[in-house]
Amino acid sequence: MGLSGGMDSVTLLGIFLEQGYEVHCCNFYYGAKHNQYEKVAFAQVIEYYQSKNLPVIPHSIDLSAAFSDFKSNLLLSGEAIPEGHYEEESMRLTVVPGRNLIFTSIMAGLAESIEADYVALGVHSGDHHIYPDCRDEFIKALNYAVYLGSDQKVKIIAPLINDTKTSILEKGFALLTPIPYHLTRTCYKNQGVSCGKCGSCRERLEAFENIGKTDPIKYE
Amino acid sequence: MGLSGGMDSVTLLGIFLEQGYEVHCCNFYYGAKHNQYEKVAFAQVIEYYQSKNLPVIPHSIDLSAAFSDFKSNLLLSGEAIPEGHYEEESMRLTVVPGRNLIFTSIMAGLAESIEADYVALGVHSGDHHIYPDCRDEFIKALNYAVYLGSDQKVKIIAPLINDTKTSILEKGFALLTPIPYHLTRTCYKNQGVSCGKCGSCRERLEAFENIGKTDPIKYE
Repeated sequence: MGLSGGMDSVTLLGIFLEQGYEVHCCNFYYGAKHNQYEKVAFAQVIEYYQSKNLPVIPHSIDLSAAFSDFKSNLLLSGEAIPEGHYEEESMRLTVVPGRNLIFTSIMAGLAESIEADYVALGVHSGDHHIYPDCRDEFIKALNYAVYLGSDQKVKIIAPLINDTKTSILEKGFALLTPIPYHLTRTCYKNQGVSCGKCGSCRERLEAFENIGKTDPIKYE
Repeated sequence: MGLSGGMDSVTLLGIFLEQGYEVHCCNFYYGAKHNQYEKVAFAQVIEYYQSKNLPVIPHSIDLSAAFSDFKSNLLLSGEAIPEGHYEEESMRLTVVPGRNLIFTSIMAGLAESIEADYVALGVHSGDHHIYPDCRDEFIKALNYAVYLGSDQKVKIIAPLINDTKTSILEKGFALLTPIPYHLTRTCYKNQGVSCGKCGSCRERLEAFENIGKTDPIKYE
């Protein structure tokens, strides 16, 4: 699965582990402003589950060469991350063309190599508005392409695709092994402490508010 | 487009240039035994067309981190490249899971970034038997996924998919600007001089024989 180190993918990992799966977790470095902080979250989440003897296998994959000629304000080469809510037009500037397609393709090839049956993505309903590669119809089309391209060996799943960040938190807090939300990282900005103002931070804070809990990470 | 430096993709490049397109050419380093030799062929082919003032833009992309846990005899980490014809079962060992899917995904993202309309692949009919990600149904499914994932901006094309290596050479030799076949590299082995014995070399030699010409590259 793709494990960015954010609350959505970490919740999905917790769900799979509670279901008894062995999970290969892929973290991608692609020259995004928040990659270095994501990487820390990824490593700490892996360590958390490994310390509980749960079967998580990390794969850190450097794709900076592949993304070096891409244009997006999410990347170090782009302009500042816009502040405000995801619904706003400005958040479109954070789209990285083909990002989920590329990550999923690499995970599909890896899955075939290690004989895993599924590639899971942590995309959710809130992503669909601005990110075309987070939509259900795209995931279905990609699943079919991967299925054919892998000689019917690998399937793509996105179990949270109809969830909101709020229902993801509800699922996470219902698990027996606590999700380490204190170790997760959601902010898109190039700074150690989360900003609390970008679309990504605001959605996360609203979700915690919706379920009546306090977000355990620090904000600026 | 993907430009490995082999005779198929170089012919396709020649066709596009003769049609008047500006072509971004992507060469991928993925830890394959023949990558270092492909890279030389790629650079020389680019130089050849640039010296004729034709619009080719090279992109060399290092994906060795992405493929580091993959299993295939085509990779440096795998066992020896089998000799013999592609039809033989042993050539299956040279399949790299998801290779075309991964390359195409990255090119689709790049195409969207630079506002290119098409991503072209040089796959041909001889590839279909053993490589599932070179088949027409896969290319069509992937095209649909990319189309949705890029908000209807990018299309995948594979103009040579119904060609054989022989008909590709016939097309190449019919162009006004000669294709630099003397600079291309087809062999899968980890050696400077092409072996003439692996499936890839044998198909190439047969194709030149079929059109009654001598292959201008050196063989062992």
